[in-house]
Amino acid sequence: MSGHPLDFIFHPKSIAVVGASDNPVKWGYIYLRYFLDYGYQGTIYPIATGRSEVLGLRAYPSVTQVPDSIDYVVSCIPFVRTPQLLTECFQKGIKFVHILAGQAAETGRKDSAELEKELLRQARSYGIRLLGPNCMGIYYPKAGLSTGFDFPKTPGSVGVLTQSGGFSTNLIRFGSLRGLRFSKVISYGNAVDLNESDFLDYLSQDPETKIILGYLEGVKDGRRFLNALRNAACLKPVILLKGGRTGSGTRAIATHTASLTSPMRIWEAAIKQAGAILTRDFDEFIDLAVAFNFLSPITGTRVGIVGGSGVIVVLSSDECEELGLNVVPLPPEINEKIKDKAPTIWKWLINPVDVSVLHGSAITISDMVTLMAESSNFDFLIANVSEEWPFTKENATTYLKNEVKAYITASKKGLKPLVVILSDRGLGIKDMDNWRWRLYAELRTQLINAHVPFYPNISRAAKAVRELIAYYQRERAISR
Amino acid sequence: MSGHPLDFIFHPKSIAVVGASDNPVKWGYIYLRYFLDYGYQGTIYPIATGRSEVLGLRAYPSVTQVPDSIDYVVSCIPFVRTPQLLTECFQKGIKFVHILAGQAAETGRKDSAELEKELLRQARSYGIRLLGPNCMGIYYPKAGLSTGFDFPKTPGSVGVLTQSGGFSTNLIRFGSLRGLRFSKVISYGNAVDLNESDFLDYLSQDPETKIILGYLEGVKDGRRFLNALRNAACLKPVILLKGGRTGSGTRAIATHTASLTSPMRIWEAAIKQAGAILTRDFDEFIDLAVAFNFLSPITGTRVGIVGGSGVIVVLSSDECEELGLNVVPLPPEINEKIKDKAPTIWKWLINPVDVSVLHGSAITISDMVTLMAESSNFDFLIANVSEEWPFTKENATTYLKNEVKAYITASKKGLKPLVVILSDRGLGIKDMDNWRWRLYAELRTQLINAHVPFYPNISRAAKAVRELIAYYQRERAISR
Repeated sequence: MSGHPLDFIFHPKSIAVVGASDNPVKWGYIYLRYFLDYGYQGTIYPIATGRSEVLGLRAYPSVTQVPDSIDYVVSCIPFVRTPQLLTECFQKGIKFVHILAGQAAETGRKDSAELEKELLRQARSYGIRLLGPNCMGIYYPKAGLSTGFDFPKTPGSVGVLTQSGGFSTNLIRFGSLRGLRFSKVISYGNAVDLNESDFLDYLSQDPETKIILGYLEGVKDGRRFLNALRNAACLKPVILLKGGRTGSGTRAIATHTASLTSPMRIWEAAIKQAGAILTRDFDEFIDLAVAFNFLSPITGTRVGIVGGSGVIVVLSSDECEELGLNVVPLPPEINEKIKDKAPTIWKWLINPVDVSVLHGSAITISDMVTLMAESSNFDFLIANVSEEWPFTKENATTYLKNEVKAYITASKKGLKPLVVILSDRGLGIKDMDNWRWRLYAELRTQLINAHVPFYPNISRAAKAVRELIAYYQRERAISR
Repeated sequence: MSGHPLDFIFHPKSIAVVGASDNPVKWGYIYLRYFLDYGYQGTIYPIATGRSEVLGLRAYPSVTQVPDSIDYVVSCIPFVRTPQLLTECFQKGIKFVHILAGQAAETGRKDSAELEKELLRQARSYGIRLLGPNCMGIYYPKAGLSTGFDFPKTPGSVGVLTQSGGFSTNLIRFGSLRGLRFSKVISYGNAVDLNESDFLDYLSQDPETKIILGYLEGVKDGRRFLNALRNAACLKPVILLKGGRTGSGTRAIATHTASLTSPMRIWEAAIKQAGAILTRDFDEFIDLAVAFNFLSPITGTRVGIVGGSGVIVVLSSDECEELGLNVVPLPPEINEKIKDKAPTIWKWLINPVDVSVLHGSAITISDMVTLMAESSNFDFLIANVSEEWPFTKENATTYLKNEVKAYITASKKGLKPLVVILSDRGLGIKDMDNWRWRLYAELRTQLINAHVPFYPNISRAAKAVRELIAYYQRERAISR
């Protein structure tokens, strides 16, 4: 625990789920299941009128009827019934309530906006902190708190604040496919009470969080947010995605979290000045998280590229160079070192290294990537998995497994930061049982287990690493 | 058949595979397998010294020993032995030879470059047309010609010329996952004889080809190429990807296909002037092919967006608007039409339509997408599959299947061009058997079967459609 005033939220000894249900399409069922499935260790109290038991747990008609103290309430009841619940929570001495319900101010209805104001007034006078409304709440795998059925149970060090529950769901689900694991993910929705600044401040102090990701639509208090952002960015990499950059995006926000938003150029300037990193879409956001999560600091742009055949070598060069990386020549001493073992090809090899030409020679991919990792000529390496390798199933399986093993081994030696390129491809149902796609899936699992970052194409890798380099170059400039 | 002078290449009555083998890692095995597996209907002659049979086919020591005529030769022997083979082909009256072997001029060795010149001299005097060296040759599923084991057997109308075999392999394999099917794919490598201009001209005349894709590293004769490109682009959409746009890319090309290349700004101007479309990376290239393959002409930028929950709605708006599309307001008559059935949410809905708010109302996703397809307010529609839908397996399966069904039904009505967004995510090996990812795979197969184009994210869809719109706007301006 960090001693931060909000830390109590994350360590409840007991949780009440209000509106508990055994109907699988009700939130009151789903949240009970989350806590049960993720191994929450405290006591869970289903709150449901007229039920003595829900999902095998003793149920109560109201929080006030629960015999012991309650640290954390998840409200799964309709929004209009929240004021009554807060009064009961106050009577019970409860200090934290997560209001799941949507259809609040984002509906554009005046009565809903009024109700939000009333809730805040209540919370302030009752000494209760509110999360939401209109949010998924807290995913904290270490404590058995989840906001989805298929999220990783193992914790990591990526901390997330997001105004959107859909965003947190996609981020956890899709990020985990790239090897990301999370410390705490907080979906805070309409932010009637606790907001982006609170959680930014919390995550910046949280010893379990090494990098901070944020999806924002608007902020409640610009000055406070910029202070929190500056402080957080001094301590950890902070990567942000801002929704509502355009006229139509801003109109959409009004109907999503009812946030007020400022012109994008103000956001851009402020985020840059604070030292945080602004991304433009979801994939770029995940790509940067992968870079900061797995790579040690890189401060130079000289890239060594290995793997793939001719076209990959050509397009890798173009894309890296266009994105600001420096595809330096292969140092002649590497050609010299392979001269005796590969007399017909030693002169032919350049950076990027086309590994298909090694085929039939006495030089392996592992030899090449090791020589490159040992060379002071490169700041980091990009390794393309030779997906286009054209031979039969048995041959391709052996070849590609050896190739990825070579990259993993080189990465583990720790001589150079290394990222792997292995494409994402949405498959059809028959492809799910095809050897090739299952082989690629197996390779991805091997990379994840070895903590080697991978990207679906060279452009996305180059962009993410270029951004990481810029970050560490700035950091170095400041600390000098 | 088109009557084009090169058409004979694509309709061989007999094929000889020189260097035939039953060793699965030899090209002489692989090409025999391709022809056998893809149901080539003509006669196949394995050519191998000292063998009477290879893979169950009667073998001959030389093409000259084959009793009948040979229309098509695939040479799988080392490059240095090609001149002798060409002499034998001449003796046999053969008119077409595909030289697979690499390690030609791209090695940078003077003797290899000299040998390429000698081959061309031979070919000219023998009246033989050469494909290659250093290329995979021809994939023409209709005739049972293949250059890979796992390519679709059903033909389509996308014609491709590519200097790189790795590129054709990736394009066919990955493009087919997006629903693309191909008329003819020609990998022509170092282009000693037949080159980009020949195949561009051929595909422009080919009645089986509706759109032309090309991957180029260099061209042999700039003036001839530009003429061929202009002519082709007048007849069909031509989408190009150019390797060697940068200094390091150009160096890489020398080692790949030994092509000479010009400064990129000259290429860019020439391609634009010819009316072809230049893309910058492989995914953009596939995305455009998908747009031109599946969508009818669109000449306006007014987009209606449907599907997904709040964050998808916000980010879809931003990304579409930033990429030059016009996210117009929902026409009030659509809100009016749902007023009675959905009294609590009718006013709340905007464009993009957040379908999660329809949940529990009497208005379905199908209702909404139909209203939008019928409205003259939109030029086309983008439909986000609600991947973040948070409920249980059974509920999510029903919900997402219904959603995709609604999009497919609307698309089939043909009222508006429609593209679907469903993410690509590289899976780990355990995920391949997980219900969620298998469900998404099933949805992709449904979309492919219904000929509905899909994109892995909104940015890539918006970029591709924007480019398609620009193309048809230019076309309309010219034809006026």
